[in-house]
Amino acid sequence: MTDTPVEESLFQIIHSYHQYAAREGDVETLSLEELKALLRDNVPRFMESLGREKPYFVTELFRAADKDKDNQICFDEFLYVLGQLLRDYHLQYHRQLCAHYCAQHSLY
Amino acid sequence: MTDTPVEESLFQIIHSYHQYAAREGDVETLSLEELKALLRDNVPRFMESLGREKPYFVTELFRAADKDKDNQICFDEFLYVLGQLLRDYHLQYHRQLCAHYCAQHSLY
Repeated sequence: MTDTPVEESLFQIIHSYHQYAAREGDVETLSLEELKALLRDNVPRFMESLGREKPYFVTELFRAADKDKDNQICFDEFLYVLGQLLRDYHLQYHRQLCAHYCAQHSLY
Repeated sequence: MTDTPVEESLFQIIHSYHQYAAREGDVETLSLEELKALLRDNVPRFMESLGREKPYFVTELFRAADKDKDNQICFDEFLYVLGQLLRDYHLQYHRQLCAHYCAQHSLY
């Protein structure tokens, strides 16, 4: 069965999670350093807005995602981080559509 | 700025959501019929496992996601559906890795 573009996207996200989870310690979970590297390398648009490049931002995100407070983020806990990313890129998607519409209609 | 593969994946998922949301009624939310079509067309691996092709499955998923009970799924509520999809494809990802390993080592 050939994967659809949405299925490829889901697998891409899962693959990236595992690439970074495998770097050190438990190969199935993300440490704070692994989450920092994953976000820095993979979602620069997210990191470069709203002052998120500040060191405490990812630490706060890590703490909020780490529901069982074991200092590691498992895949289920990573879904919280993904929710934050999707909310952010959803806004960016609408901004891009709006800019495209305005450019087409010479609105600015 | 060029999008990374993860950013492209996030935008792909968001774009698909909007393609189906725009079909009828409120163009920013999914009706039950729109969610059914989105899942059928985009995540066949998810739908074809565990008897999810049965009509009541998507109805139950829709009800669970529709937190404010307005009979529509907004993008924030769609994150619940995405969480279910990601959990499922995460398991499939591990099954594929396992099958690949077993084939490489002639384990079956």
